[in-house]
Amino acid sequence: MSLKLTILGCHSATPRVNAHPTSQFLEIKNHNFLIDCGEGTQVQLRKYGIKFSKIKHIFISHLHGDHIYGLIGLVATFRLLNRETELHIYGPKGLKEIITLQLKLSNSWTHYPLLFHELSSEKSELIFEDDKVEVFTIPLDHRIYTNGFLFKEKIGERKLDMNAILNYPEIEICDYQNLKIGRDFTLKNGKVLKNEILTLDPEKTKSYAFCSDTSYFPEIVPIIKNASCLYHETTFLKDREELAAKTKHSTASQAANIAKQANVKQLIVGHYSGRYKNIEAFKTEAQEVFKNTFLAEAGKVFEII
Amino acid sequence: MSLKLTILGCHSATPRVNAHPTSQFLEIKNHNFLIDCGEGTQVQLRKYGIKFSKIKHIFISHLHGDHIYGLIGLVATFRLLNRETELHIYGPKGLKEIITLQLKLSNSWTHYPLLFHELSSEKSELIFEDDKVEVFTIPLDHRIYTNGFLFKEKIGERKLDMNAILNYPEIEICDYQNLKIGRDFTLKNGKVLKNEILTLDPEKTKSYAFCSDTSYFPEIVPIIKNASCLYHETTFLKDREELAAKTKHSTASQAANIAKQANVKQLIVGHYSGRYKNIEAFKTEAQEVFKNTFLAEAGKVFEII
Repeated sequence: MSLKLTILGCHSATPRVNAHPTSQFLEIKNHNFLIDCGEGTQVQLRKYGIKFSKIKHIFISHLHGDHIYGLIGLVATFRLLNRETELHIYGPKGLKEIITLQLKLSNSWTHYPLLFHELSSEKSELIFEDDKVEVFTIPLDHRIYTNGFLFKEKIGERKLDMNAILNYPEIEICDYQNLKIGRDFTLKNGKVLKNEILTLDPEKTKSYAFCSDTSYFPEIVPIIKNASCLYHETTFLKDREELAAKTKHSTASQAANIAKQANVKQLIVGHYSGRYKNIEAFKTEAQEVFKNTFLAEAGKVFEII
Repeated sequence: MSLKLTILGCHSATPRVNAHPTSQFLEIKNHNFLIDCGEGTQVQLRKYGIKFSKIKHIFISHLHGDHIYGLIGLVATFRLLNRETELHIYGPKGLKEIITLQLKLSNSWTHYPLLFHELSSEKSELIFEDDKVEVFTIPLDHRIYTNGFLFKEKIGERKLDMNAILNYPEIEICDYQNLKIGRDFTLKNGKVLKNEILTLDPEKTKSYAFCSDTSYFPEIVPIIKNASCLYHETTFLKDREELAAKTKHSTASQAANIAKQANVKQLIVGHYSGRYKNIEAFKTEAQEVFKNTFLAEAGKVFEII
């Protein structure tokens, strides 16, 4: 199965009628991750038919409003929907205080376990792991403490090559698991069959790197190297490169440069400043440097292969 | 000029695509007041063409999310719009901490003066006054500390009766202001002209009472007596009167009863529970008790005469 990314909002700063702040919904292996949560995210989730109960992990890049002002509403709505399962929230130190203060003052404690994983490291770290997926932070360079997130599928088991296996009647079904995890097989006559002749390479893993908000920051390149897909903010076009540097944002051209250096397979750009009426210009500018660029738009679904 | 009320949102609990939480914009005399500020209010303001800079006073009834989760976003947007004028926010104790914590942690202090007027009295009190308008709290009965607000025009100056005045050439333009404020006029021959023969009564004052959220609470009747218009929450219909009592909300029938007892001129109902698909039923139920009932709907404008 491919990774599936649904854009819920992709504009910067203030929400407007047709410009929703940052939020994305990522389906990877058996997980459903919400990334950032600007004001109105819960309405966008409903609009695009995403079941609230699917969300068990929320990743917040930083504490600017266009990335978090929808979080308290979503947390409160989960309560009204009688959620019982755990909700894990990963984000900068301070996030827990923001959310719990509001729950306390409105006398609306959640009935479900609400677990905060506060981040403060300046280095990339592993913040989530199970048998199928890993999530690492991508420290970014913005006006306040900010992380991107790298979502990586883990390498799966080797695949059985049944054409080869059936040549050896001694190999029984109960041996298959050992083959999948890479073990050789020893025949009764003592001959060792190397694992590679009985199995095929596992499926190629995929990865998604989310980077918003940040100045042009090539230090991230080693972390996101060869990612299947990179989302990189492009608040401005290169006509406002100075403003981008001053506000610690990026231009489309700079985002494309990062994609090129990191040798990613595809680039999605977003976090457009409201001053640009036509977002096509972001694609045109980025494609001058990195051809395989796509525009984030609310409701758009990307199948990452 | 009549009072003008624009409904920005009028549903309870969680925001949905076509159901916006409570917020109203009231134009009264020379003031523009925002009342409550559920998530997405700033988008609704834009949708209905209300200039952000007009808003100088925001009144918050209570700290439940469907009445305040849009406030931090609006405060932050004012900053991005380079607002310089004061913003006054009236609401329950704790509101200041909620807003300032988020501004602090996002390193986004406002450049404009942000002034909080925190409320904690259980009795109706005057919280705003100038030469034209007064605002009083209306203590309500809800699950947490909640106030409604009564917006009252002050009695204006008396109007000159030019037909009468022109009979007395001795009365000069510089005397008019004394007549407007109710003084008698003494002629040179010593005869006193009573003010009433030279002036007419001032325009009738209007008032608007906003009551959300509350159980059926007749204690408010003396405060809102004879109001030109009452907005009263109707979260439920009378088929769910028990649930209304338990959650400290009102039915349409109860709201209409309050309107009747208070002898208001018109009633607007809103704060509909999401379980009712057809809001017409709220009007039908209320009108059985109080004929002059109207439904709040997002975008609807009421001219209060």
